[in-house]
Amino acid sequence: MIDVDITPARPPGAQMALEIAEQPAALAHLLTAVDPIRAVADQIRAAAPRFVLLAARGTSDHAALYAKYLLEISLGLPVGLASPSTLTVFDARPDLTDVLWVTISQSGGSPDLVESTEAARRYGALTLAVTNAPDSALARACELSIDVMAGTEAAVAATKSYTNELLALWLLVDAWRGGDSAAAQGLPDLAAGALAAPGVEEIADRYRFVDKLITTGRGYSYPTAREAALKLMETSYLSAHAFSGADLMHGPLAMIDQDRPVLAVVPRGAGARAIAPVLERLAERGADVSIIGDPAASRSGQLVVPLPTGATEDLSPILEIMPLQRLAHAMAVARNHDPDAPRGLAKVTRTR
Amino acid sequence: MIDVDITPARPPGAQMALEIAEQPAALAHLLTAVDPIRAVADQIRAAAPRFVLLAARGTSDHAALYAKYLLEISLGLPVGLASPSTLTVFDARPDLTDVLWVTISQSGGSPDLVESTEAARRYGALTLAVTNAPDSALARACELSIDVMAGTEAAVAATKSYTNELLALWLLVDAWRGGDSAAAQGLPDLAAGALAAPGVEEIADRYRFVDKLITTGRGYSYPTAREAALKLMETSYLSAHAFSGADLMHGPLAMIDQDRPVLAVVPRGAGARAIAPVLERLAERGADVSIIGDPAASRSGQLVVPLPTGATEDLSPILEIMPLQRLAHAMAVARNHDPDAPRGLAKVTRTR
Repeated sequence: MIDVDITPARPPGAQMALEIAEQPAALAHLLTAVDPIRAVADQIRAAAPRFVLLAARGTSDHAALYAKYLLEISLGLPVGLASPSTLTVFDARPDLTDVLWVTISQSGGSPDLVESTEAARRYGALTLAVTNAPDSALARACELSIDVMAGTEAAVAATKSYTNELLALWLLVDAWRGGDSAAAQGLPDLAAGALAAPGVEEIADRYRFVDKLITTGRGYSYPTAREAALKLMETSYLSAHAFSGADLMHGPLAMIDQDRPVLAVVPRGAGARAIAPVLERLAERGADVSIIGDPAASRSGQLVVPLPTGATEDLSPILEIMPLQRLAHAMAVARNHDPDAPRGLAKVTRTR
Repeated sequence: MIDVDITPARPPGAQMALEIAEQPAALAHLLTAVDPIRAVADQIRAAAPRFVLLAARGTSDHAALYAKYLLEISLGLPVGLASPSTLTVFDARPDLTDVLWVTISQSGGSPDLVESTEAARRYGALTLAVTNAPDSALARACELSIDVMAGTEAAVAATKSYTNELLALWLLVDAWRGGDSAAAQGLPDLAAGALAAPGVEEIADRYRFVDKLITTGRGYSYPTAREAALKLMETSYLSAHAFSGADLMHGPLAMIDQDRPVLAVVPRGAGARAIAPVLERLAERGADVSIIGDPAASRSGQLVVPLPTGATEDLSPILEIMPLQRLAHAMAVARNHDPDAPRGLAKVTRTR
């Protein structure tokens, strides 16, 4: 008897492509359920935390970094990214009175995040889970919980859970500061526009044989640069290195030459003005730069993925990442990798 | 008339090598001046801050990350790494009452750090400069200041200012928690031992043709992994990527194959137990791993730089980085680069 594999042929990366395409609908879905997020915001406002600590790993860590900028800029709160190992490995016993501890995790299942969150609660923090799994161990460990409602995410490379995490965090901060979430209502349409933006195939084609690449951004766009680098690493095994525009000038600039292209995320607004001198220095060094965002920031010969206008700067990261997810997918497929089956990775990562 | 260059020949990287070698003496020098640090600790203790924000860039950012672990583990304070651009670019107006804001900078001259520190003070933080330039704009901007006393550092790649920053921060935290700094007294001798540790040349030789490399560590050793990657990038233009052991499992593990070696920093203590499962996974993936620290963590065939025993785990980062500085220097010279003249870099970086 011969063992025949009758699984129907599936194009490499089909699952990831599907979930990338679902993002406008997933964002729209979350926008129909703002009330539970408002209720969480009310409880947080009543508790009046004075500091915020954000705990996350991998893709969700970039959502945490986005939340850090939002909280600092919009609410004027001092914010830190937690180092879970101080609680789980080094037995720190912090005083977390007046601290809001937010753990962000797609699966809500990473043991070190659950354990550090439980410890944070024990040490006096008000704890909030932001997760795509409202029945997870993480959600149960926290007083408060927000469901990001991205739907089942099966691809190893997280895409729609990331953008829904960003929107959920924005909606939380907006409600906390007394907003009516109006600025976010147009996002699903803008997201459809961002997914259809031209230029992704040209960049994938140009960088087909590149194996070292830099991503950069400042302010709200820095998390985008980080997440883009992670997606490229996970799916194409590229050495993709993200730097904030400011840090790039402190050392790593020496690495950049004609063989190491740069993907620069350039929103419209204050972040754009802040990254202009960085783009200047890159041009002086002869770097091959492609621009994601504002075409006005590009120079002659550079490839550009123009993003739709109409989003406020603090919502732009939700759009910026979409062509970069498509780029990671396209480069992986062009290199004969299956982005749905990255070597060595599982969907839920178990660390302590 | 002919213009003759009469500058005497100087071996590439001579200045960096000199400053690496000066570290035991620089540490000893700082240990003779603990009293001013104690006085600063007394003032901080009197102010009783409840939250700490650390601002820095480049190499000093890794000293800030080290301080974050120290403050969280030893003093139980919640700590965040500041995003200076929220103050300098996005005009955040935070309430920094009860916050200690620490800016760490070798030169004390980076405009965005001075400006964000001035803003932090205006918004209510108690501000402290940790710098190698006690008369700098940064030191003048702060209520409190600690001189790390590393002496003039001329090489672009910071080495002795980094280890003296680490020791100054340790002495501050030790005094703050009521210690007598006894644990640090043996450091200069241990540093001499760390500088003489065997194995660096073998690793430089083995990775002579590598252009992508991973560094990893957990807890106190994670800043070491970050700083080692930066040194390799600055001097050898390697694509050196640092991951905490936990983050490595979330995505970047897919990148690792037989062509991308890993430098793992493994102290003795809790951090070692936490990184053991990471080393296990790397071995399963057939990664080429070299160990800096505890030889007991190594497997057959791996290169090891054994570090001297006798330092507490929280002081070990001061020793761990030394062979890695030597490695960055050796690899740059082997590749015909001059680590004293990295392309595209200046000693003081001006960002806003």
